[in-house]
Amino acid sequence: MKKVLFASTALIATASVAAAEVKFSGYGRFGISYQEDNSKSYEVTFTNQNTGQTLTTASGATITGVTTTTTTGKATVSDTVEETILVSRFRLNIDGIAETDGGVRFEARVRLQADDTNDGEAGEAGLNGARFSVIYGGLRVDAGNIAGAFDNLANYYGNEPGLENFIGQYSGVDYSFAGYSSTGAGVNGVFFQYAVGDFAFGASYDQGADTWTAPGGVLTKTDGRDRWDISATYTFSNITAAIAYGQTEAAPGGEKETLTVLTLGGEWGDFSGTLFVADDDVSSDALNGTAYGLSAAYNLGAATTLTFAYGDGSADDDTQQYGIGAIYDLGGGASLRGGIGQSKAGDGDSKLRADFGAQFNF
Amino acid sequence: MKKVLFASTALIATASVAAAEVKFSGYGRFGISYQEDNSKSYEVTFTNQNTGQTLTTASGATITGVTTTTTTGKATVSDTVEETILVSRFRLNIDGIAETDGGVRFEARVRLQADDTNDGEAGEAGLNGARFSVIYGGLRVDAGNIAGAFDNLANYYGNEPGLENFIGQYSGVDYSFAGYSSTGAGVNGVFFQYAVGDFAFGASYDQGADTWTAPGGVLTKTDGRDRWDISATYTFSNITAAIAYGQTEAAPGGEKETLTVLTLGGEWGDFSGTLFVADDDVSSDALNGTAYGLSAAYNLGAATTLTFAYGDGSADDDTQQYGIGAIYDLGGGASLRGGIGQSKAGDGDSKLRADFGAQFNF
Amino acid sequence: MKKVLFASTALIATASVAAAEVKFSGYGRFGISYQEDNSKSYEVTFTNQNTGQTLTTASGATITGVTTTTTTGKATVSDTVEETILVSRFRLNIDGIAETDGGVRFEARVRLQADDTNDGEAGEAGLNGARFSVIYGGLRVDAGNIAGAFDNLANYYGNEPGLENFIGQYSGVDYSFAGYSSTGAGVNGVFFQYAVGDFAFGASYDQGADTWTAPGGVLTKTDGRDRWDISATYTFSNITAAIAYGQTEAAPGGEKETLTVLTLGGEWGDFSGTLFVADDDVSSDALNGTAYGLSAAYNLGAATTLTFAYGDGSADDDTQQYGIGAIYDLGGGASLRGGIGQSKAGDGDSKLRADFGAQFNF
Repeated sequence: MKKVLFASTALIATASVAAAEVKFSGYGRFGISYQEDNSKSYEVTFTNQNTGQTLTTASGATITGVTTTTTTGKATVSDTVEETILVSRFRLNIDGIAETDGGVRFEARVRLQADDTNDGEAGEAGLNGARFSVIYGGLRVDAGNIAGAFDNLANYYGNEPGLENFIGQYSGVDYSFAGYSSTGAGVNGVFFQYAVGDFAFGASYDQGADTWTAPGGVLTKTDGRDRWDISATYTFSNITAAIAYGQTEAAPGGEKETLTVLTLGGEWGDFSGTLFVADDDVSSDALNGTAYGLSAAYNLGAATTLTFAYGDGSADDDTQQYGIGAIYDLGGGASLRGGIGQSKAGDGDSKLRADFGAQFNF
Repeated sequence: MKKVLFASTALIATASVAAAEVKFSGYGRFGISYQEDNSKSYEVTFTNQNTGQTLTTASGATITGVTTTTTTGKATVSDTVEETILVSRFRLNIDGIAETDGGVRFEARVRLQADDTNDGEAGEAGLNGARFSVIYGGLRVDAGNIAGAFDNLANYYGNEPGLENFIGQYSGVDYSFAGYSSTGAGVNGVFFQYAVGDFAFGASYDQGADTWTAPGGVLTKTDGRDRWDISATYTFSNITAAIAYGQTEAAPGGEKETLTVLTLGGEWGDFSGTLFVADDDVSSDALNGTAYGLSAAYNLGAATTLTFAYGDGSADDDTQQYGIGAIYDLGGGASLRGGIGQSKAGDGDSKLRADFGAQFNF
Repeated sequence: MKKVLFASTALIATASVAAAEVKFSGYGRFGISYQEDNSKSYEVTFTNQNTGQTLTTASGATITGVTTTTTTGKATVSDTVEETILVSRFRLNIDGIAETDGGVRFEARVRLQADDTNDGEAGEAGLNGARFSVIYGGLRVDAGNIAGAFDNLANYYGNEPGLENFIGQYSGVDYSFAGYSSTGAGVNGVFFQYAVGDFAFGASYDQGADTWTAPGGVLTKTDGRDRWDISATYTFSNITAAIAYGQTEAAPGGEKETLTVLTLGGEWGDFSGTLFVADDDVSSDALNGTAYGLSAAYNLGAATTLTFAYGDGSADDDTQQYGIGAIYDLGGGASLRGGIGQSKAGDGDSKLRADFGAQFNF
């Protein structure tokens, strides 16, 4: 999700501005994925029944081709696709950095990313929305395409098995918090973080965009829903405990939505683990309630790490996930990775997913 | 507009091609803006009344989802939005550079830029059209997404107060000249510049794109309008005087449009100032006539600069602007910036705008 | 097409990951092109006849603008455009690279490219689909937006005269093989290459994407067509011989398509040349049959190279091309380039094309 990689740095020489630089970092990964009952939605464009309509041509215009007139509509079709597909991601972080004489650090980031399209094909690379940061001592303020207090929370994601990190301890959470968007504009919000001694505090705020729709031909405005979250983190010896709370303004005629999360993470030699408990209150009663999970990682010798994660929730339609993974370090920032796991939404069928491939940081 | 920043340079090592390099530079800025009566146009998509239409399914097709058929239309709604919003820009110039054995320098530039959308949200970063340059001694030839003779004219923009440079001495000008486009393809033109001693000359030419439309169902071609401009600049002691003239080919049934600009700029110790006089002849009589303005900057101590600008025009609907700004240098290419000013189009209401934030070069 | 330029490299310093780097390379080119009978297709958007339809406004909504409702259609018009136009390309390869402790090299590439639009205008830069590579000794495996065995075949393209390489010995080939896409997502395939001594072998495979259409209102699925190709190359002294075969799965109710290519290339002092013979079997009988061509290059003194190419085919509608070009090396990776040639499809009119300009690598 928001894991930031700083494997490499372009050296910068500047005559007058000693502290400014542009830094590039990222990773590539590719491999094979198996996804049981894999499916895709297609948008089908069809020609409307007004083909009898004609366009007349202005006299004297030098039109050399055939003119055709079509009015198009859309139909959405959901269809099965290949279960075993080629998966890949290219990620490049572009960071512009400056540091003032007083030691205040400014950063701006845009991410360039290309992904497979989950059906055996891949898409073009795209650019996301920019994030701006001011950092001074233990204080950090982000603006723009931010990650909020949940997305930044210690041990929120825990260990996520698989090349594509497809199993997560947070699977029972149905609240939509402010997260860094790698492929779109993201939110335009503000995030604060302050670290002092063993404590760290975080908070974020973003306004939802107003939208206009015309259901039944009646123009209707829907106000964007404001959203905020706060967090506190405490580290004692080899244990880190973190708690966060967030809420989203009520939609018209609806009620506000909230999420509370508590995480614990620890490390003992070659073993590390996380515990996750949350309570979400969203608009659908079938998704409300407690979510819980855990994850673990174990270093098996010098180069191999085994990972495990389990996530579930008390609500009728919560998603349950569990699975294991392995990472084999090849050195130089490259590794072989794979995982296998089950995912099940409510009383639906359990679906197997597995993947294997290589990831390399640059 | 076309201000070019070269704060940083990626060091390049090449075995066989000593002069080639790829250079990155740019800036980030973010802050808060207040804009009186801020508004936005929304495009609303609505469902057409042909929901009775159905699609039949080819037998044997394994369709697992629901199919819906909609034909969509558009309505445009202008609505007020938040007056106080988060504003931001990320700009990265990507320059590919080569130098021949004879000292001729070739450059190619593409810009990557992300901006806020002026309503509290921000957009994804995008790429613009490429500009190509040949530079040899005092001669420079640009091709592609060029800045023309006006956009390159000394003291055309003068001092523009505010983090977002929202006040300009040129506000009374309504002629559309060839300008470098940071976010779109821009023109595909040619620009020449020649500097010799205290003199410099510039000229540009671009062809408008032909367009096809179908007003009332009749296919109609509109030829692109060719456009050119020329300029001369003379520097004597601490004063720079510049003059430029440009014209745009007449639209069918219309008349040609022209712009003449005269600028003066000077520097006396901590004070610098510009004078601006122009005459534009465009298709709307309510915008024709003289435009005039001035701007100034004053260094108040070591780190603070105050700026001022005023622009107006003699035509009924010309835009009047005036405002002041301040820049506080933080060192390392970073600064705090803000401004406040009024803008008024013709007899319309005067609208207050103010902003404050940080900008940092990299 | 797939010519890769490594003229420059950003130096990378990494504390912990010694082998990782992000590398930038590419070229710029711009100049003038003449193309006889140059034409372009326009998509014209027109307003549908349902302007009588109105939208009602929800009471209390603060709509301040005029609302208009339009349903749009499209007409395609083919029209002549300027024969003499400004042409240009900006290409930047972004390569993320990592090398394992065992010497296995991982690479990921995305290309940023801007091109003219062949009608006197230019477009915005865009990003393509990512390609991932694993390289170890003589073995190379690519995944994603790959170049297949034909696109990688020695001497397939030969010498292509002109700034824009618009004449090719392969002009009689009508089979569509897996090629690296500079501007779109490209295929999502796999390519293998193995070199041992004087021999090299290549093979690629890609799946076509499934598509849904609705001809006559009936939803219809068309399976993607799988495609593969293989090649063998042998170099003896100053001669390289290469052979490749590929086929594409039959479309429903159609037949499979195939291509066989044999190339020979050699170098004798200042002269180099290529021979090209191919047999393509595609769905249209008027394009099937033998294709053949040749190309040559001659170094005329220290800085000038003359190029020549001829391509033709035995089928009725095959394209015949021939032309000559010149390259004048300016040093530092820059050169002046131009070419002139004829192109003729089947019994159509022969069309003259010529260009001249500068290219510089970075």
